[in-house]
Formats: sequence, C-alpha cells, structure tokens
Amino acid sequence: MPKRTVLDPQGQTIQHALSGLGYRQVRDVRQGKFFVLNLDGWSRDEAQSQLERISKEVLTNPVIEEYRFEIVD
Amino acid sequence: MPKRTVLDPQGQTIQHALSGLGYRQVRDVRQGKFFVLNLDGWSRDEAQSQLERISKEVLTNPVIEEYRFEIVD
Repeated sequence: MPKRTVLDPQGQTIQHALSGLGYRQVRDVRQGKFFVLNLDGWSRDEAQSQLERISKEVLTNPVIEEYRFEIVD
Repeated sequence: MPKRTVLDPQGQTIQHALSGLGYRQVRDVRQGKFFVLNLDGWSRDEAQSQLERISKEVLTNPVIEEYRFEIVD
C-alpha cells in the first residue's frame, strides 16, 4: 500500500473514473498490492518473523509503501 | 485476486525469487490488487450494494478475477 504521504496516481484515476460513472460518494481511492502466501514448515512464531522480513525486504519498498500481514491457519 | 484456476505468473515469479533467497517454506504465492475506498454519503446498506456493483463492474474482471470487500466504519 502506498504511504499516505505518497501520491497514488492509479488510485486517483480510479476515483475519477468512478466519479464519472456517477459514484460520487467515493471520495478517495488508494491502490495497493495483495499477496497470498502458502506456507509449509514454519511454526506460527517463525512464520511471524519470517513474514516480517519477507514483507520488508522483498515484497514492499519501505520508502514509499507500508504493509501489514495476517497469518491464517 | 486471480481465480484459482487462472495462472498467476507474477505470483510464480515471486515464489521463485523467495525460494532462491532461501525462503523455501513459501510454497505458493498469488498476487492480487487491493483498494481502499473512502466513502461519504451512503448508508451501510447502500454502501454494501454499491460496492458490490463497483467491484463487479469496475474494479475486477469477473472472467479471471474474484473479489471480496469489507466495510469498516
């Protein structure tokens, strides 16, 4: 997800398009990425710390993006 | 999110990269899009039905993608 302080031209374009289609109640759109990872072989604690690293070092650009993740059994 | 029956080359590339970096416990990756919409002027019921339409008609390609949304106050 782009940080709030970072411009999101894709989101703005979608907001414009929706407004043009009559959805004027949509005031703001931000677009981000979404990943579903299938894990096997880590305990829940290991998964927590490994996913922290994967998120920070591989899946996001920490300068302009923020992330959050959830572990589902 | 691409449907399970649809190939996801981006997700596969990420899975390969992670495996190469030593994260072999990540068996599968699927990549999708994520939108945060700021709404104003709809009741919760209206938001529910309008978001259903927006998801289906604007934000996803129903042939290859599936969606779900959540309304947060």
